[in-house]
Amino acid sequence: MTGKSQKHWTADAAELLSVGADFSLDDVDPEGTPGYDGGKTGAVDDLARGAGALDELQERLYAQSRVAETGDTAASVLLVLQAMDSAGKGGIIRHVVGSVDPQGIALTAFKKPTAEELAHDFLWRVEKRLPNPGFIGVFDRSHYEDVLIGSVRSLAPADEIERRFGAINEFERRVTDAGTRIVKVMLHISADEQKVRLMERLDRPDKHWKYNPGDVDERELWPAYMAAYQTVFERTSTGDAPWHVVPANRKWYARLAVQQLLLGALTEIDPQWPAATFDVSAEKARLAAT
Amino acid sequence: MTGKSQKHWTADAAELLSVGADFSLDDVDPEGTPGYDGGKTGAVDDLARGAGALDELQERLYAQSRVAETGDTAASVLLVLQAMDSAGKGGIIRHVVGSVDPQGIALTAFKKPTAEELAHDFLWRVEKRLPNPGFIGVFDRSHYEDVLIGSVRSLAPADEIERRFGAINEFERRVTDAGTRIVKVMLHISADEQKVRLMERLDRPDKHWKYNPGDVDERELWPAYMAAYQTVFERTSTGDAPWHVVPANRKWYARLAVQQLLLGALTEIDPQWPAATFDVSAEKARLAAT
Repeated sequence: MTGKSQKHWTADAAELLSVGADFSLDDVDPEGTPGYDGGKTGAVDDLARGAGALDELQERLYAQSRVAETGDTAASVLLVLQAMDSAGKGGIIRHVVGSVDPQGIALTAFKKPTAEELAHDFLWRVEKRLPNPGFIGVFDRSHYEDVLIGSVRSLAPADEIERRFGAINEFERRVTDAGTRIVKVMLHISADEQKVRLMERLDRPDKHWKYNPGDVDERELWPAYMAAYQTVFERTSTGDAPWHVVPANRKWYARLAVQQLLLGALTEIDPQWPAATFDVSAEKARLAAT
Repeated sequence: MTGKSQKHWTADAAELLSVGADFSLDDVDPEGTPGYDGGKTGAVDDLARGAGALDELQERLYAQSRVAETGDTAASVLLVLQAMDSAGKGGIIRHVVGSVDPQGIALTAFKKPTAEELAHDFLWRVEKRLPNPGFIGVFDRSHYEDVLIGSVRSLAPADEIERRFGAINEFERRVTDAGTRIVKVMLHISADEQKVRLMERLDRPDKHWKYNPGDVDERELWPAYMAAYQTVFERTSTGDAPWHVVPANRKWYARLAVQQLLLGALTEIDPQWPAATFDVSAEKARLAAT
């Protein structure tokens, strides 16, 4: 599917971008376009081609989930998006996720936890938003906030952060065992690129609502966030649910790459149109008689 | 907005398709294309143009909802879709709703009620799925099932159906008073067109999963359903939340028309980009210093 539909990929994005042993975030160039040689021009066609493929695969996934005894009826996909502010999560959702039939998408944007959410374990609100079979779930931020800002801003003591890493790995193992493929993505921009993007929000009145003075305060903590991401990768990039770091200074590359990761996950599931569970000829005769 | 963006509309779709006094479903031609003279060819461009307009209006609606004191911060839109099987609800969601950023859409497909849902009043599950401010909510089926199939299949006694009409009108008045514009749509196909579409599902293996032998049983009740819809229109097409009957034998027309109805609702809300709630120059200086 991947090779057929998208001609400028020279390598498997899932493999190339995944976080393995000895990974260092410092070594990733946010300007890079690893594995893709089509440039911004080639990306337009490839993104459109990939959108068609993704839409069909999702429909098959949904169809398969509706009919018992066809393929893996419990299968679903969960895209987890994490990033610094302005790195392009919204653009991924609009342009990559948005190309799929909305009937097959379950999107959750996790905000600052409410009082009720804080009264429960940090995974409580996440569990409730896991995708049903047949769906592509999308988390715009996630339980990883609880070990990122949670650590950088000391919202929880160090031993609680430690506990959470273990809890996350157990949780994700259970979720993947139950049939969900988890695609974890960090969109990686440079601090300079963020500055340009935040300045653009200040320059354009139609973007003012996206700007928050707190963004500059968070920005001062950039090195601490990068260190926290590095720790997250080391502790939670597992065989079942590896992290992918996607260079995101070039929006067109980040979108293509995340689309590839979703296509890869769905291609591995390989969903099938279910066989009829009724007698097709008999139903044709019944219908014709009406 | 409507006139500027879509050149082949000769009348206001919201007005033309709305259910007023003396409305009779029998008088609506499912093959019709009222108010539109662009034909199937013109529809392609007009749908694309309308998609751009709809996407921008929704983003403004969302932006406005985020910032206190800008316009109607409680405003949202709720599209209620009802139809006989195969009339094209799915196509509306894919092609009209699907053109909007998924971050601004809250879609609910109401299925046969669960035991828990049945243990509550029929509006209980509906209330929970009302759109938050800034969103376009979409109901694929709705509380109207409880007075449609509920009546045709005698799932509830006549006096309970009566009670529900009153409850629906009160409920919808409360919802509109709270800032939600409700756009109620029945997609109207002919029984012959349904036969063609169901037969196509039987002819194509990739559509078998969409076919259910129960569809033919429901089809036998066509006149009873049409009578139930007529009653629903008479009892629940109110000034606050009128019904619209959209001829749907031509899919391209139904999609354009529903898009027009959504554009009309958003244009009436007239959402505005919120003014900055911070000192733009001061923030630029702070950001520049990082």
